[in-house]
Amino acid sequence: MKIIETVGEVQADARERTSRSVLVPTMGALHRGHLELVRVAREHAGKDGEVAVSIFVNPLQFEPGSDFEKYPRPESVDENVCRDAGVNLLFRPNDMYFDDRSVYVEETALSAGLCGAARPGHFRGVCTVVAKLFNLLAPDAAVFGEKDHQQLAIIRRMVRDLNFPIEIIGVPTVREADGLALSSRNQYLNADERAQATVLYRAMTRVKELADGGQKSVGELIDVAKGVIASAKSARVDYISIVDADNLQPLGVLQPNAVIALAVFVGKTRLIDNLRLW
Amino acid sequence: MKIIETVGEVQADARERTSRSVLVPTMGALHRGHLELVRVAREHAGKDGEVAVSIFVNPLQFEPGSDFEKYPRPESVDENVCRDAGVNLLFRPNDMYFDDRSVYVEETALSAGLCGAARPGHFRGVCTVVAKLFNLLAPDAAVFGEKDHQQLAIIRRMVRDLNFPIEIIGVPTVREADGLALSSRNQYLNADERAQATVLYRAMTRVKELADGGQKSVGELIDVAKGVIASAKSARVDYISIVDADNLQPLGVLQPNAVIALAVFVGKTRLIDNLRLW
Repeated sequence: MKIIETVGEVQADARERTSRSVLVPTMGALHRGHLELVRVAREHAGKDGEVAVSIFVNPLQFEPGSDFEKYPRPESVDENVCRDAGVNLLFRPNDMYFDDRSVYVEETALSAGLCGAARPGHFRGVCTVVAKLFNLLAPDAAVFGEKDHQQLAIIRRMVRDLNFPIEIIGVPTVREADGLALSSRNQYLNADERAQATVLYRAMTRVKELADGGQKSVGELIDVAKGVIASAKSARVDYISIVDADNLQPLGVLQPNAVIALAVFVGKTRLIDNLRLW
Repeated sequence: MKIIETVGEVQADARERTSRSVLVPTMGALHRGHLELVRVAREHAGKDGEVAVSIFVNPLQFEPGSDFEKYPRPESVDENVCRDAGVNLLFRPNDMYFDDRSVYVEETALSAGLCGAARPGHFRGVCTVVAKLFNLLAPDAAVFGEKDHQQLAIIRRMVRDLNFPIEIIGVPTVREADGLALSSRNQYLNADERAQATVLYRAMTRVKELADGGQKSVGELIDVAKGVIASAKSARVDYISIVDADNLQPLGVLQPNAVIALAVFVGKTRLIDNLRLW
């Protein structure tokens, strides 16, 4: 496994490359969810292609007062995880931004709601760093988890609107046996909070059952979800929305392409999840 | 000469290309200034390389109320000019933007002053369309005129901050015999205005003489420039600034890397120009 730590070297490496390459952008603290991204990347790269993983805890996408400082950075563990997973290139840059940086990629429609409302600047940071990674590694395709549904929709929009010649591949969320979506932030949870954290999945599946049963009122479905969340004493809703999966516009009545997306604080840890309803 | 009019075709063409490619982004209405850009592009592409010219009057970079509708579009003339100049690929897209576009590239520091102050949204439009062209044509290098000094500085900054793997080449301004910088907008001038339009170059060269003679006060140099502009009855200063050529910060005292940049209305036509002072 090649390890590259500067933008100049990774760009030179990309220029020399002749094989197909598939990128898995991450912030490290790799878990089984990331391994699933790597597995799908390998499928798309082919046996002789390159699977590249980037690990970069991107300061631009942490809004002020959030967990940038305490975000886990288990460097040598991540390196071994990548090596064991058959990753060909690990890019963990130490020179991504100039102090006088002044150029940003901004998405102005899909970013307005959901996590974008709660995290000003977050998706500008995401779009900017992903655009940089695309230009640095020039992959043929890039893989993102569906767990971050809004992020995936925004990246797809960015690729469409800025014409990046890159295929975007979404990968279904990997869950623990009890339904909790895998996330690097799950390690912030204590045992009691971890037990309560299943409430996100339970709320979504209850809504899905009702939707499958014919309930079309988004208002009533969201009320049901709120009720389930309220049953966990350490859980506090940040948002629960039912939106169109592509343009993320809130729906009044359930219709094709509907997805439920939610963010819930469990203790001090903010967890997000989503489930396709139609 | 290959002519391509859709984003899908140009991206497919770029994928198949094996030669070096140098892009000249334009809005058409091609004049000798553009031909100089093409000549420099050929130098950098080499005999067997590709010189690509894009012609696209980009609505995003025209602020409301400006000359988007009346901007000249001599399509067949431009096509012949490109063919005669040995251009290999002419890209004149008809499908650059989706109606629900929502992703933009924004430069937030160098865009604040000079033309950026007078033309809100202009450089966002420029950065966005140039980023799209870079992704669509994947050139090895791109050529821009130094006449649009701020634009060139912003494009260089965009390439640096977003890590586009593309060399940016600035080309010295081409002038008429009397000093007027070539511009597609010069054709808006009537004969009398055309005669007065030399005042921009006369103001800049007078300032350069004084600077060469040891005048270091930017305030006094700008006053001299204003005096020269005032001598032309149809001329009205939009701005005159002496700034650092790279970060475009206004200078108080002349120092290395200084450039004078100005925008002047001659009649209703807004002309810009600049000259290196140090």
